[in-house]
Amino acid sequence: MSLLADTIAAISPLDQEALHAARTHQDQLSKPQGSLGRLESLSIQIAGITGVSRPRLDTPAIVVMAADHGIAHQGVSAFAPKITLEMVRHFLAGKAAINVLARHAGARIVVVDIGMASELPPHPDLLVRRVGPGTADVSTGPAMSREQAQTAVEIGITVADEVIASGVDMIATGEMGIGNTTASSAIVAAITGRPAAEVTGRGTGIDDAGLQRKVALIEQALALHRPASADGLDVLAKVGGFEIGGMAGVMLGAAARRVPVVVDGFISGAAAMIASTLAPAVQPYLIGAHRSVERGQQAVVAHLDLEPLLDLGMRLGEGTGAALCISLCQAACKILDEMGQYD
Amino acid sequence: MSLLADTIAAISPLDQEALHAARTHQDQLSKPQGSLGRLESLSIQIAGITGVSRPRLDTPAIVVMAADHGIAHQGVSAFAPKITLEMVRHFLAGKAAINVLARHAGARIVVVDIGMASELPPHPDLLVRRVGPGTADVSTGPAMSREQAQTAVEIGITVADEVIASGVDMIATGEMGIGNTTASSAIVAAITGRPAAEVTGRGTGIDDAGLQRKVALIEQALALHRPASADGLDVLAKVGGFEIGGMAGVMLGAAARRVPVVVDGFISGAAAMIASTLAPAVQPYLIGAHRSVERGQQAVVAHLDLEPLLDLGMRLGEGTGAALCISLCQAACKILDEMGQYD
Repeated sequence: MSLLADTIAAISPLDQEALHAARTHQDQLSKPQGSLGRLESLSIQIAGITGVSRPRLDTPAIVVMAADHGIAHQGVSAFAPKITLEMVRHFLAGKAAINVLARHAGARIVVVDIGMASELPPHPDLLVRRVGPGTADVSTGPAMSREQAQTAVEIGITVADEVIASGVDMIATGEMGIGNTTASSAIVAAITGRPAAEVTGRGTGIDDAGLQRKVALIEQALALHRPASADGLDVLAKVGGFEIGGMAGVMLGAAARRVPVVVDGFISGAAAMIASTLAPAVQPYLIGAHRSVERGQQAVVAHLDLEPLLDLGMRLGEGTGAALCISLCQAACKILDEMGQYD
Repeated sequence: MSLLADTIAAISPLDQEALHAARTHQDQLSKPQGSLGRLESLSIQIAGITGVSRPRLDTPAIVVMAADHGIAHQGVSAFAPKITLEMVRHFLAGKAAINVLARHAGARIVVVDIGMASELPPHPDLLVRRVGPGTADVSTGPAMSREQAQTAVEIGITVADEVIASGVDMIATGEMGIGNTTASSAIVAAITGRPAAEVTGRGTGIDDAGLQRKVALIEQALALHRPASADGLDVLAKVGGFEIGGMAGVMLGAAARRVPVVVDGFISGAAAMIASTLAPAVQPYLIGAHRSVERGQQAVVAHLDLEPLLDLGMRLGEGTGAALCISLCQAACKILDEMGQYD
């Protein structure tokens, strides 16, 4: 069997014993039952994920997958394609938003070049696992081959494995790739059957004309390739991106090893849709981070029942929303583990 | 002049120079403008509050005001009045939800007995600043005298002064007091003119009959005392609580010293309404923490334009929502201070 098939087969339901023990303990703590709302349900979910009735999340990591998109040359972004590389340099220099929030959360960042147009010199924080020099332009051909799609997902699984083997007990997903809201909208439209216009937003901040062009290109790509909505690799290959496949793989790999995964915003959400199309059992291992300004995320939230923890009007990506949620997940676990009971 | 009058007079508008410098710098950082949403506006607000263009919030404290309420003997809570004392013992033992979240946030807790029914033995984390042994039953008489109301607010101002003098640069408000959602609903009804039924919720979790009784008692108290909606001390005296006055004082004291204050949920929100009735200039110094399940908070949010940062279905009080927001405020400041610019 392939690494992908093995990983999918290894994803079990949540641990019902740990879930039950956590719920029972939560209800005995010195507060009105349910009065900590989402923190309570989150702690119980994490118990079920980890199989530990009073889990701790002490060693978080943020995995940032970076890749380029052929469609980015068609003016679907307010930023030029070369910004992918510039921002990854910024990540490695520790100067981007995700670095600031990772330091604040006490989380390690792992940046993965899974297929940027240009290569970077070696750097201790950079994993070079390239599928290719960016995807092809989906308005004229598939983004990648089916084999490349599987490779991208398997790279993500391997990265999750390595990160978890190093002691990480919680993974937040992030990405960089100019053009990747276009790929994400195409994925969400393909899997949910919703019209492209309904799930396509302004990404980095395009104007009305740019948005129209973006929707038209997505419609064109979907009409041309007709991805099979129930076949995650087909959707990923025809309209996706390497970093989106990589993040889907991280989610599958983490779930197979009972490690919670925080799904950032829209693009991570599109990756979660690929992951859950490949393996529906992954869903309860996912924690929704934030409600993105990007409109297509509403369809992701509805499709995956992945209610986000935060709603702060953010739309940056990189994993910034997921990074903010690390502290909330830790707080939820500490409430369960550290609070006293009524005398 | 009184300490209260002096403090009100010392509250200035936000520092426009720092606000402007923060906004300009925020827009030069390496991200699409506005893409960090509320984190950006929060950082700019904190710059205006502190008068520092790139502020840091390194030393947060949570001030938890505890007091008892005469009305609590009328069955308005699912918990007995003695739970106020029991929970404060729990705070001092470090075992309550607020302790867990304070440790997680790296914040010091200051517990203030501003008027519990019973006294506690001395404890290093406890400030004893009692206005009296709980308020009177508002269904038959005013909660306290006008002098006591002013004393409660001035105690809060003094506590804020002391805490800030010790090096604290950010204050989160919290409280404990069985019966205090009743007092808070009465305050919100009195100041906004909304019907009691519209701003009264289930507090710790009363049933339908309990909720009807609670609404009827609030209506009775408001009809009996007719608090003057524009006179914060009159409202506080007639239907408020010592801890609510104390929290209002903390907000005024912090604003006078240009220190940001995180307003927890409904009860802290009622205190914020008293504070802003006394001194409208306090409003921009306040940061709304979380959207409470307690329905009356919607009226507070609307009245004070105090959009909360979090919406996690919480209704515990103690300052738990505010404690969670400490990390978000720090993150917002770090984004402004630590991020790089495009090359």
